[in-house]
Amino acid sequence: MLLSRFFLPVLKETPKDAEIVSHIYMLRAGMIQQSSSGIYSWLPLGKIILDNITDICRNEMILAGANEILMPTLQSANIWKESGRYEDYGKEMLRIKDRNERDLLYGPTNEELVTEIFRTHVKSYKGLPLNLFHIQWKFRDELRPRFGVMRGREFLMKDAYSFDVDYESSIKSYNIMFISYMQLFKKMGLKAIPMKADTGPIGGDLSHEFIVIADTGESEVFLEEDFLSFEGSLNEINYERDLQNEVDKFTSFYAATEEKHNPNDKKIQSLNLIKTRGIEVGHIFHFGQKYSKPMNAIVNKNDGKNTPVYMGSYGVGLSRLVGAVIEANHDKDGIVWPQEIAPWHYNLINLKSGDKSCDDTCKNLYKLIQEKNYTVLYDDTDERAGAKLARADLLGLPFQIIIGPKGIKEKLFDLKNRKNGKIERLSYDELSNFINQNNR
Amino acid sequence: MLLSRFFLPVLKETPKDAEIVSHIYMLRAGMIQQSSSGIYSWLPLGKIILDNITDICRNEMILAGANEILMPTLQSANIWKESGRYEDYGKEMLRIKDRNERDLLYGPTNEELVTEIFRTHVKSYKGLPLNLFHIQWKFRDELRPRFGVMRGREFLMKDAYSFDVDYESSIKSYNIMFISYMQLFKKMGLKAIPMKADTGPIGGDLSHEFIVIADTGESEVFLEEDFLSFEGSLNEINYERDLQNEVDKFTSFYAATEEKHNPNDKKIQSLNLIKTRGIEVGHIFHFGQKYSKPMNAIVNKNDGKNTPVYMGSYGVGLSRLVGAVIEANHDKDGIVWPQEIAPWHYNLINLKSGDKSCDDTCKNLYKLIQEKNYTVLYDDTDERAGAKLARADLLGLPFQIIIGPKGIKEKLFDLKNRKNGKIERLSYDELSNFINQNNR
Repeated sequence: MLLSRFFLPVLKETPKDAEIVSHIYMLRAGMIQQSSSGIYSWLPLGKIILDNITDICRNEMILAGANEILMPTLQSANIWKESGRYEDYGKEMLRIKDRNERDLLYGPTNEELVTEIFRTHVKSYKGLPLNLFHIQWKFRDELRPRFGVMRGREFLMKDAYSFDVDYESSIKSYNIMFISYMQLFKKMGLKAIPMKADTGPIGGDLSHEFIVIADTGESEVFLEEDFLSFEGSLNEINYERDLQNEVDKFTSFYAATEEKHNPNDKKIQSLNLIKTRGIEVGHIFHFGQKYSKPMNAIVNKNDGKNTPVYMGSYGVGLSRLVGAVIEANHDKDGIVWPQEIAPWHYNLINLKSGDKSCDDTCKNLYKLIQEKNYTVLYDDTDERAGAKLARADLLGLPFQIIIGPKGIKEKLFDLKNRKNGKIERLSYDELSNFINQNNR
Repeated sequence: MLLSRFFLPVLKETPKDAEIVSHIYMLRAGMIQQSSSGIYSWLPLGKIILDNITDICRNEMILAGANEILMPTLQSANIWKESGRYEDYGKEMLRIKDRNERDLLYGPTNEELVTEIFRTHVKSYKGLPLNLFHIQWKFRDELRPRFGVMRGREFLMKDAYSFDVDYESSIKSYNIMFISYMQLFKKMGLKAIPMKADTGPIGGDLSHEFIVIADTGESEVFLEEDFLSFEGSLNEINYERDLQNEVDKFTSFYAATEEKHNPNDKKIQSLNLIKTRGIEVGHIFHFGQKYSKPMNAIVNKNDGKNTPVYMGSYGVGLSRLVGAVIEANHDKDGIVWPQEIAPWHYNLINLKSGDKSCDDTCKNLYKLIQEKNYTVLYDDTDERAGAKLARADLLGLPFQIIIGPKGIKEKLFDLKNRKNGKIERLSYDELSNFINQNNR
């Protein structure tokens, strides 16, 4: 991508209203723009990151056997009256009347709607297990929207819903989602910690939230030190297998948010606990027949009897994750994207656009990088060198290749690793070799 | 994809409330489900088609130099008051009050919001030309929602917005979008006809709508017969060139909807006109300074003076297109997907699942097709042969490969071309050769 053709409205000054680093950097790097309180437009750079995160999440859901659907943003109030949640939800739910005075609402979550879809079509154990997921904008009318996309009102969520014929199978489905969450956060370059959680307005008997570790995170968390380096056997996951064992390994560690942590608990006295901070990015719930009973989502079992179907729901806050990734990956100069979700692999910086040698060298490298199937943002603008370098650090692509008249003369070019800040001076051939290697 | 793992709730009977063929087939093929009047959930098959259409549209926008952003579904009423459209829009606009009694609305279109984004960041001709597009759900509270996704209330639209420093450049931007529309409909396997159009509530001095020809279309259209076979030079499009000539070729033909057609017009007496039917799937508008003036979207020209920016907007109804494609491509047995947007290339049908020879042959073909980078839906369910064949015709994938005990015995297998209905009996090697060829 040529930067001259990419709409990237970088701000030089720190925006006044932004309190936390992800919000500041997202505004400064031209990723988002607020349109009203807690409601944002995603500018091109923000959209790329949101898409990268969404794609990783979608692909893992598909690997785990889920079917993608897409439910609408607006729902009829009727199904929420059926489940009994219409009154419960309070002012966070955005209630709407259409031109015929019918009650609609902007979906804050989709248990009711997906149960309605299920009960229309599935009547027998033969259609089970089933997992339906969708990726759609939700709305929760937060009392105090803040921290940019971290606590917005209109937000993008992946929500999956599992359906099973009995309790045991539904725990298996829960376990598949548990492990797929560990996988997808890892594939985003994040360290996520599962923690036993309250079920809140979703309900149910079993629930975990997934917390991304970040020094600037919103909540204090306590966990066993070994948990941080424990990876389980995520590389060899086979979603067809029973995953109870895998889940047990993750849940055997102690981990709790401040609210749940009891320092006097005898069981934890002998553990090597650390205190850190984190951000909730996912939450999974097993709630059995909570919705299927009042909504009559009944299936025929293989013994001929009927049962309300057993369900769970599984959410990932995709737009919130963009902020969480930045909270977990930044320094004083800007964002440091994990390779897995970086908008481009390379930032090619022409320090003197218009200079024929610089332009030619950059054009060759631009072509070479793309031939090797890496992506590249080429800063071909006519701004001054200092501004370009500062912007490159702010944007935080994994590698910067810096081409200027001095390097051309000396036939040595700067390759900067954004994460550790290390700069190597390489000949064109060495640079070309570096690009040839799999350096992701 | 194994059909046994794909959520495809096919209906055997024609749904009562569906009046037009696309709505009937979308319900019968398990593509959509109504959740409230004019509001639909997209089930897995519908989601695939919607994605395929969306991807073609997105890719063409990017080829044409547009930048993808994503604006929210909910907008503040304030910017609509600035432009003067808040009162104009009437009951079609869904007006909402949030918990703090602030006026929001569900965006029916985005001229105001994109103008606000533009004016925040772009102050100089140096940032121009600029084209920002997004793909987002819109809401229009239709008085009579009907015809399924063809006239829904919540619908998916691609809308692009061009910004230019003067009238001449903005006509160039309009022409780029005009030609990109011809391209993207062609890439969807559709014949679209551009027609001069009224500008309605969007406003402006120049507008075209794009009509997909379909016998069952909603509007009668009159056009020169030669227009139907005219393709222009779309294969060699270079969006960097001036495209006025290309646009002139398309607009030189006579084409008009019933409302605009005047059979007594002398100019058309000598033309070979035909009468057919069509569906509007795109609409482009050049409206110059209509929004930039009241909203103060001012840029500095290279002569140092200021001017309100010149704009156009360009919409494609993506969810509506799913219906339009079916209206244009179906027969009495079901849908006949154009190859370009088919959900899978092949429908592999095992007439006797559980029979070892049938299963083995199918498994080999399933593997072979995927190795050749084609996609395949494998009907591995245990339903009876007749039901499977009827379902395959309803689903309308380009090719059916039908494997049954009779074929196994005779070593000859049926390959059915869904479009022309022709069935060839091929040996395994011949079938394998057919798959090896580029037969899309």
